[in-house]
Amino acid sequence: MSINRQIHLVSRPTGEPTVDNFRLVEAPLPAVQEGQVLVRNHYLSLDPYMRGRMSDAKSYADPQPLDQVMMGGTVGEVVESRNPAFKAGDQVVGMGGWQEYQLVDASQRGVLQKVDTTHIPLAAYLGAVGMPGVTAWYGLTQIINPKAGETVVVSAASGAVGGAVGQLAKARGARAVGIAGGPDKCRYVVEELGFDACIDYKEHRELKSLLAALKQACPQGIDGHFENVGGMILDAVMMRANAFSRIAMCGMISGYNGEPIPMMAPQLILVNRMKIEGFIVSEHMQLWPEALKELGMMVATGKLKYRESIADGLAAAPEAFLGLLKGRNFGKQLVKLV
Amino acid sequence: MSINRQIHLVSRPTGEPTVDNFRLVEAPLPAVQEGQVLVRNHYLSLDPYMRGRMSDAKSYADPQPLDQVMMGGTVGEVVESRNPAFKAGDQVVGMGGWQEYQLVDASQRGVLQKVDTTHIPLAAYLGAVGMPGVTAWYGLTQIINPKAGETVVVSAASGAVGGAVGQLAKARGARAVGIAGGPDKCRYVVEELGFDACIDYKEHRELKSLLAALKQACPQGIDGHFENVGGMILDAVMMRANAFSRIAMCGMISGYNGEPIPMMAPQLILVNRMKIEGFIVSEHMQLWPEALKELGMMVATGKLKYRESIADGLAAAPEAFLGLLKGRNFGKQLVKLV
Repeated sequence: MSINRQIHLVSRPTGEPTVDNFRLVEAPLPAVQEGQVLVRNHYLSLDPYMRGRMSDAKSYADPQPLDQVMMGGTVGEVVESRNPAFKAGDQVVGMGGWQEYQLVDASQRGVLQKVDTTHIPLAAYLGAVGMPGVTAWYGLTQIINPKAGETVVVSAASGAVGGAVGQLAKARGARAVGIAGGPDKCRYVVEELGFDACIDYKEHRELKSLLAALKQACPQGIDGHFENVGGMILDAVMMRANAFSRIAMCGMISGYNGEPIPMMAPQLILVNRMKIEGFIVSEHMQLWPEALKELGMMVATGKLKYRESIADGLAAAPEAFLGLLKGRNFGKQLVKLV
Repeated sequence: MSINRQIHLVSRPTGEPTVDNFRLVEAPLPAVQEGQVLVRNHYLSLDPYMRGRMSDAKSYADPQPLDQVMMGGTVGEVVESRNPAFKAGDQVVGMGGWQEYQLVDASQRGVLQKVDTTHIPLAAYLGAVGMPGVTAWYGLTQIINPKAGETVVVSAASGAVGGAVGQLAKARGARAVGIAGGPDKCRYVVEELGFDACIDYKEHRELKSLLAALKQACPQGIDGHFENVGGMILDAVMMRANAFSRIAMCGMISGYNGEPIPMMAPQLILVNRMKIEGFIVSEHMQLWPEALKELGMMVATGKLKYRESIADGLAAAPEAFLGLLKGRNFGKQLVKLV
C-alpha cells in the first residue's frame, strides 16, 4: 500500500493563523474500488476563501473539519481508474484538497472534470479558467455590468481574481483601475495586464490620501467596484462613486482575522443610489459554462494574462497560504506537487 | 392684488434644524398669465427628504434655495385657469410648496395633475396614492420582491411609507414585521394595518435587546428589509438576515443631522449574499402609473389603510416638520390650509 501525504487543519486560529494550525500527515492510500478514480494532484490552489473556512463562525459554508485534509481545488492526472468515464493519463480538475493523491467516486457529477490542455496550461484551470476567473466574470458581468466608457475599480488587482476583473472590464470598453500593494504589482497591473491605472495602497495609508489617488485615477468617478478587501478601500471607493454605481462584494480580506471593518458612510448607498451585492460563485453553477467559454478563449488567444506564484512541494502549502493572506503572492498562488 | 402667505427657508441648520430656519413671508400674488393656472393649496405634504434639502451638502438633489418658498408636494383646487387643460374647480396634485397659492405654467408636463376624488380622498394623493405610496411600492416590488412566505421588515412602520410597505408585502403573501416608536404606533401597525408583528424600538435601546426582539418577531429570519432609519436598526436587521436577502435603502433618518451612522458589519453582505440598493422614487417615473394603479385600487377598496397627522394652517408647518423628524407624527404628516 502506498503512502499519501496530506496537510490537515489541526486547530482553529484565534486572530491571525499560523503554521501551527496545520500538520503534515502521512496516510495510507487504499486500493481503487469499482467506480473510483485515483488522481495524482499536480497543483493545489490556495485561495483567500480558505481563511473563512478555518474558523467555525457562522458563514455561508461549513467550516473545514479539524484533523482532516484541507479542502481546496486541484488539477492533476488520473493514474488509475475503475470508472468508465476516466482513464489513466486524463488531465482533470477537482476538489482534491491539500494532498498528493485523491481517490474519488467519479460517478458523482462535477466531482472531477476532464480538461483540455492543448491551448490552456493545466494550472490555468485553477486560476483564470477556473474558480477565480469565474468569480471575476460573475461579479463583473452579473453585478457591475459595465457599459463602455464607465470606470471599474478592483482591489487586490494583481491577484487571480482582480487581474481578470480588470481585463474583462477592458474587453467591454470600460476604464479599469486597480488597487494593489507595492510598485511592482502596480506596474504589472498596468503594463502587463493593461489596466488604465493602478493605485498602490501602501502609499496611501490615510483615507484622505487614498481619496486623492482615486480622484486622479478615476477622473469621471467610479461606476463599478469589485471588492476583495473591504475596510478603508471600500469607504474611499464609496465616496468617489457615481450615481447608480454597483459594487460586487466578493471578499473582505481586511476583516478575515476578526478585525472590525465598519462601513463609514452607508448613507452614500442612498445618496448615490448604489447597489451592493455579495455573491459566492459556487452558487451560480448554471453560469460557469458561459464564463469558462469566454475565459478559456481569452487565455488561449493571449487576451487574458495572469501570473502565478508557485510554492514547491506539499510541505510548503501552509507557509504559502499565510503569505497569500498577507499579499506576499504575486498573481495566482499555487503549490506544485509534481 | 391678493396676498400669498409662504414659508421660506432663511438659514441652513447646523445639526438639528429649528423653527428659526424658517420664516413666514407675505408675497403679492401676480395676475394669472396666458397658459398659467392658479391653485389654492388645500394640503401641504411634509416628508423626511426635505431635511436633506435644507443642507447644502452634495446629494442627489439640489439644496432648497435660501429665501425662497420651501419646496414640497401639495394638493388643491384650481381657482383660476388660463390654460385649456384646467378649469376652476379641478382637483390637482403638484409641487406647490409651502404656500397658500401656487401660480404655475401648467403646460409643462407633470407640473400639475388632475385627480379623481370620487373614491379616493384628495389628501391621499400626498400619501398612500402619492409619492410615499409609490416609494413603498418601488422598494418592495422592485428591490425586495418578496415571495409568499418570506419575511419583510420595515422601519418607521407607522409612517406613510412604512405602513404601505407592510400592507403591500402582506398582499403578496409575505410576513410583515414593523419597527416603530412607542406602544400606540406598534398597536396601530399590527391591529389596524395588519402587520404580523411590530417591534417598539424605544424598548430596545441596546443592540442585543433589539436582536432578541427581531429573532422573536422573525422566527424564519429576514428576507427583505425596507430601511427608513439606518444606524442600529440596520445593523440588527443585517445580523438576522437570511441568505439572498434584499435591503431597499429608502432613508436614513438617524443620520440626517450629520451624526455618523457606520454599518457595523458589512462583511454580512458577503456572508449572507445580500443585495442592498438605494433608490429615489422620482427617478423611476416610468413605473408610477403601475404603482398608482395598484395603490389607488387598494385605497378605494379599503385594502390599504393609513393614518394622517394634520397640522392646522400654514404657520404650523415648520413645527410640524420638526416633529416629523422626531417621529412625533402618526402616519402621513400634512398641513391643512383650507
